Amino acid sequence: MSTAALPDAFLQAISEGFPPDFLTREPSELAEYGRDWTRVYAPAPVAIAFPRTTDEVARLLALCNAHRVAVVPSGGRTGLAAGAVAAKGELVLSLRRMNRMDPVDLLGNTVRVQAGAVTEAVHQHCAQHGLTWPVDFASKGSSHVGGNIATNAGGVKVIRYGLTRQWVLGLQVVTAQGQVLELNGALEKNNTGADLRQLFIGSEGTLGIITEATLKLTRLPGKQEVFLFAVPDVAAVLRLFRDARQAPLLLSAYEFFTDKCLARVQRHRKLRSPFDAPSGCYVLVEAEATDAAAVEAWLSSLFERGLVTDGTQAQSASQAAELWALRESISESLSATGLPHKNDISLPISALESFCSELDQFFRARYPSWEICLFGHIGDGNLHVNVMKPDTLEKAEFLAHTKQADHDIFSLVRKYGGSISAEHGIGLLKKDYLSYTRAPAELELLRTLKRAMDPHGILNPGKILDT
Amino acid sequence: MSTAALPDAFLQAISEGFPPDFLTREPSELAEYGRDWTRVYAPAPVAIAFPRTTDEVARLLALCNAHRVAVVPSGGRTGLAAGAVAAKGELVLSLRRMNRMDPVDLLGNTVRVQAGAVTEAVHQHCAQHGLTWPVDFASKGSSHVGGNIATNAGGVKVIRYGLTRQWVLGLQVVTAQGQVLELNGALEKNNTGADLRQLFIGSEGTLGIITEATLKLTRLPGKQEVFLFAVPDVAAVLRLFRDARQAPLLLSAYEFFTDKCLARVQRHRKLRSPFDAPSGCYVLVEAEATDAAAVEAWLSSLFERGLVTDGTQAQSASQAAELWALRESISESLSATGLPHKNDISLPISALESFCSELDQFFRARYPSWEICLFGHIGDGNLHVNVMKPDTLEKAEFLAHTKQADHDIFSLVRKYGGSISAEHGIGLLKKDYLSYTRAPAELELLRTLKRAMDPHGILNPGKILDT
Repeated sequence: MSTAALPDAFLQAISEGFPPDFLTREPSELAEYGRDWTRVYAPAPVAIAFPRTTDEVARLLALCNAHRVAVVPSGGRTGLAAGAVAAKGELVLSLRRMNRMDPVDLLGNTVRVQAGAVTEAVHQHCAQHGLTWPVDFASKGSSHVGGNIATNAGGVKVIRYGLTRQWVLGLQVVTAQGQVLELNGALEKNNTGADLRQLFIGSEGTLGIITEATLKLTRLPGKQEVFLFAVPDVAAVLRLFRDARQAPLLLSAYEFFTDKCLARVQRHRKLRSPFDAPSGCYVLVEAEATDAAAVEAWLSSLFERGLVTDGTQAQSASQAAELWALRESISESLSATGLPHKNDISLPISALESFCSELDQFFRARYPSWEICLFGHIGDGNLHVNVMKPDTLEKAEFLAHTKQADHDIFSLVRKYGGSISAEHGIGLLKKDYLSYTRAPAELELLRTLKRAMDPHGILNPGKILDT
Repeated sequence: MSTAALPDAFLQAISEGFPPDFLTREPSELAEYGRDWTRVYAPAPVAIAFPRTTDEVARLLALCNAHRVAVVPSGGRTGLAAGAVAAKGELVLSLRRMNRMDPVDLLGNTVRVQAGAVTEAVHQHCAQHGLTWPVDFASKGSSHVGGNIATNAGGVKVIRYGLTRQWVLGLQVVTAQGQVLELNGALEKNNTGADLRQLFIGSEGTLGIITEATLKLTRLPGKQEVFLFAVPDVAAVLRLFRDARQAPLLLSAYEFFTDKCLARVQRHRKLRSPFDAPSGCYVLVEAEATDAAAVEAWLSSLFERGLVTDGTQAQSASQAAELWALRESISESLSATGLPHKNDISLPISALESFCSELDQFFRARYPSWEICLFGHIGDGNLHVNVMKPDTLEKAEFLAHTKQADHDIFSLVRKYGGSISAEHGIGLLKKDYLSYTRAPAELELLRTLKRAMDPHGILNPGKILDT
């Protein structure tokens, strides 16, 4: 993509109104800032802008709007759906330089940060006061708060804390026209008409660009107990879930994985299972427990009532880390031991058992030689479906098959009222499948809103849906 | 308002396509369904429609849209901002007949109900399973779930559970065009573009009419401890708040009221204060406490550290009810002992002390003879400011003064980044003041959305803002 794609008048205005280091067209920067963790689309941005202030973002967007320059907002670029990919000559607007964190408000339990603040840096900033922003996942060392909000990020602690949406009090957003909106300030309660803040959370930068946020904080959690249980099948995973939710525990994670996932983790990472006998499924539970005796009684009763076939409780931080490693090494182990095709779906919890059973039947009937590795945050209805390429199949043939299989999987997702993207978002990667989760009337309303808010379509065009 | 205001073709279509008892123009029904608990505007609806199904709502709205008939959606009519008032010949659409509650989903902890289900009926429906929909306030015996959602209702438990928004998984909404949207089903996680559900929550029926909802449920809370503390002033209320949030307690209410409120409660209800000496402010704390010894140590430390001047813990359910009665009788006692002018505002918690101090100075300087009764859910930054009419002032003169005073109060609210309506909404009552909380760019975006979604302005016209 040549820089000729940017109008001269636009470049002139940039050179007159912004610092000399505002824009770069250096090839290595174009390659780096033109994509996220989704390695499917070749990056091809026309240039990268690095604003330092909201005012610069506002003036830049007003110019882009006037000159019809397409803009891709860019945070920590850890996305997995190509929401931050600039593959068609767009201008990338990186929030990297906007990483200011204000002092923590210890009366309100809030902190105001710029969008480019790194998630883990925010955790560290707040932890010294015994507080945390409970948005937590593997990529927190790179991801930005602005990106977390624009994608309404999930993670392993959603069962206790909910999604990112719940932890954002105020947003500063720049519109396609370059207007700065200050939405909701630092207020817990504000019933003054439609909550515009909510529109920008999870819309992947297609409606406005988040420049600052007032984050809601909470106390750091108490000591966590970690358990691993062996159960025969998905039905048993769900029976145990229902029971655990009524147990004397404050759940912060309820994760499951199948024997096939464990086998690949063991092959790749040489980790040992704590159990002697193999089992169909495993459940990792993390929870706060204030009454140790009550927890012990609950644990014994699990065996007596036949809810688990085996189980162990970590007796130390290192044992807890070992149990977590079994779950957290899955993604890496699948990639290291084969070629996985990934889907990140969600279902109503009450539909999970039937869905998994039909999914199993479908693969057995249509692709009997494929290995399916299931795992996920099952307490939130979130299932990661990983299909492994059989050794006998060429990669291209496998990908052609998975494309077709995705239509079948998503038909099943639709049948059970699920979502084709639980956490990762739509971006470019899932755009063609959006109608499996969103009905025509919803898609039309999404388009109506997009056209009303961004009539020239300059904000992250082509992401989520075409307008 | 004469029924002639409804076009003949519209009435014809109603009589042909709907049951005979679908529409009423009976004067007593017009008076009853034409207003909510806000006793300021005379009800003047043209007719009341009582649909039984979503399909009827959809067909009705399509007709209203075609014939430009204005519609006021109507739930339990417990609103305090005239959001459900039909004062200008609108057609009232009552959801009263749509009160179906499905069986509770005990695996997903959800329940699907129609919009007309009464809040307290939902509580009873779920309590038999040890579950609750934690949206709770004084009017729950009359209010509807649909109205709770359309106004994003708050209440006394927000500090623990958050607002209604947090407890709605799925929404079925009928648009101005009569399209039925099924938004988010029963999913905890669904990252597939802008979350349209959020647009309808809290927009007071101006963007669509909620017909069904899938509610998220939680375990019934454990045993609650109730404390009442005496502290000298608002600064001390906030110091204690900060401390209580770090105490070995799971707070479910942190309420405060001033000596002036208590005096009127004592006059009207003949209730006794548990304390011998009077104090400037009182704080009611309700919390779950699993570690009784730790709570006792915390309580003693409050006295040692001078955080409270007096305090008591309820030793029984009846004592807890007595303490709660002091707080819950305030509204009624103010009205019984005088004429209060009410405001329901919110501030960032860290701004409360300065705000209250400036508010006090303002009234002392400008209206020295007025009695100001402050109370509220101070843990959420929510303050009820009640100005009592002095005996020496005529009512009309008082109201003229309060109208002017409101502008001054709201200027102060704006200065501190607060909201002119924490819980009650805007409706007709606060419309003229909306710009104190919403900036011009926000108001313009609200209008853009309204025009895009309801181009003929048939949905609750004139509520929140004019378009």
